[in-house]
Amino acid sequence: MNNVILQEQRIPEPALRRLPWYLAYAKLCKANGDMYISSTQIAHDIAVDASKVAKDLSYVQVSGKTRVGYEVNLLVSVLEDFLGFTRTHKAFIFGVGSLGGALIQDNGLTQFGLKVCAGFDVKYELSGTRINHIPIHHVDRFLELQKQTNTEIGILTVPVNKAQSVAELMIDGGIKAIWNFTPFRIKVPETIIVQNTSIYAHLAVMFNRLTDIQV
Amino acid sequence: MNNVILQEQRIPEPALRRLPWYLAYAKLCKANGDMYISSTQIAHDIAVDASKVAKDLSYVQVSGKTRVGYEVNLLVSVLEDFLGFTRTHKAFIFGVGSLGGALIQDNGLTQFGLKVCAGFDVKYELSGTRINHIPIHHVDRFLELQKQTNTEIGILTVPVNKAQSVAELMIDGGIKAIWNFTPFRIKVPETIIVQNTSIYAHLAVMFNRLTDIQV
Repeated sequence: MNNVILQEQRIPEPALRRLPWYLAYAKLCKANGDMYISSTQIAHDIAVDASKVAKDLSYVQVSGKTRVGYEVNLLVSVLEDFLGFTRTHKAFIFGVGSLGGALIQDNGLTQFGLKVCAGFDVKYELSGTRINHIPIHHVDRFLELQKQTNTEIGILTVPVNKAQSVAELMIDGGIKAIWNFTPFRIKVPETIIVQNTSIYAHLAVMFNRLTDIQV
Repeated sequence: MNNVILQEQRIPEPALRRLPWYLAYAKLCKANGDMYISSTQIAHDIAVDASKVAKDLSYVQVSGKTRVGYEVNLLVSVLEDFLGFTRTHKAFIFGVGSLGGALIQDNGLTQFGLKVCAGFDVKYELSGTRINHIPIHHVDRFLELQKQTNTEIGILTVPVNKAQSVAELMIDGGIKAIWNFTPFRIKVPETIIVQNTSIYAHLAVMFNRLTDIQV
């Protein structure tokens, strides 16, 4: 494994969020049998500014060759490694409702290095069931199972009025990073990593833009 | 219905993306029986700067009263209306794999005004099946069904190597907005609305931050 995680400089979040785009594109080039791709070509094909592509890729330890660009195979493996997709990260899902249940069904997460080990819910009737082979427990069992597994990531898909208290429960148990799918803004200590993915907020942006073009 | 969609000024996207947070919080206050909430209180409870809250809310036609703040019921209804959650928007899902199938299962989308009318896939064995009562068709039937339904939104959950061509097919059929869940950056005409929700990119951000705290 390349030692690319020893970053000299912390990568800014917007740049980090663009890296998966380059990875997706590089994998496509790999599948096409391309040997090299340039930042200009990446920029053109995915409509990102070329200087931004080069700058973003400077944060990962991969250097392009003059005129030919980046070696495709190397770029794919360095990016996958840098983004953490080649290691397995354990996660628990809190709230096995509509969205939580849907996420448990999404095997795509596994491909990107996220292993959902269990789901927790307050509904007793869900305890002991399985979705996509993943066991569902009553939330009362979280602390016990957390001690056994040392899970780092908690996926928050509970109703809005439970978001803050369930986040606090996770943190008490030793969860280090919370992937918050609720539209509620949880308050956490500074040491806890929070990633907000409110897909309904994205929906709102789309609806609003559609209204604009109809007026 | 209030006439709040007639915006005098186009709301910037970052502000628009924050509105669902205020809505989620206001709904919580409503459920608690609160009559009024101030921007200071919102700011404190969801950890956003108070002046930002007031500025963001100035884009929707709702005014707070000095000292008491915003009327909770009014704020909820004005925000829901502004965000388009009270109207029904028809959508098709393209790519009924793991993520597409999961999204079809998520009834939360319906609550926020998105009605998924059908799913399309290239797999013939999926044609004629239903997920969550929603019919799945072969993608060859899209143009025909699009003519009948005039669907505005296309949800893109196909593999990366099909993202661009399926986006172009959607646009040819008259889709106005594409909700892109793939990590591929599609290129579209300027008149087409694109919302990128690459949940795997969020995963990468979380993994990277976790690595930082472990080094």
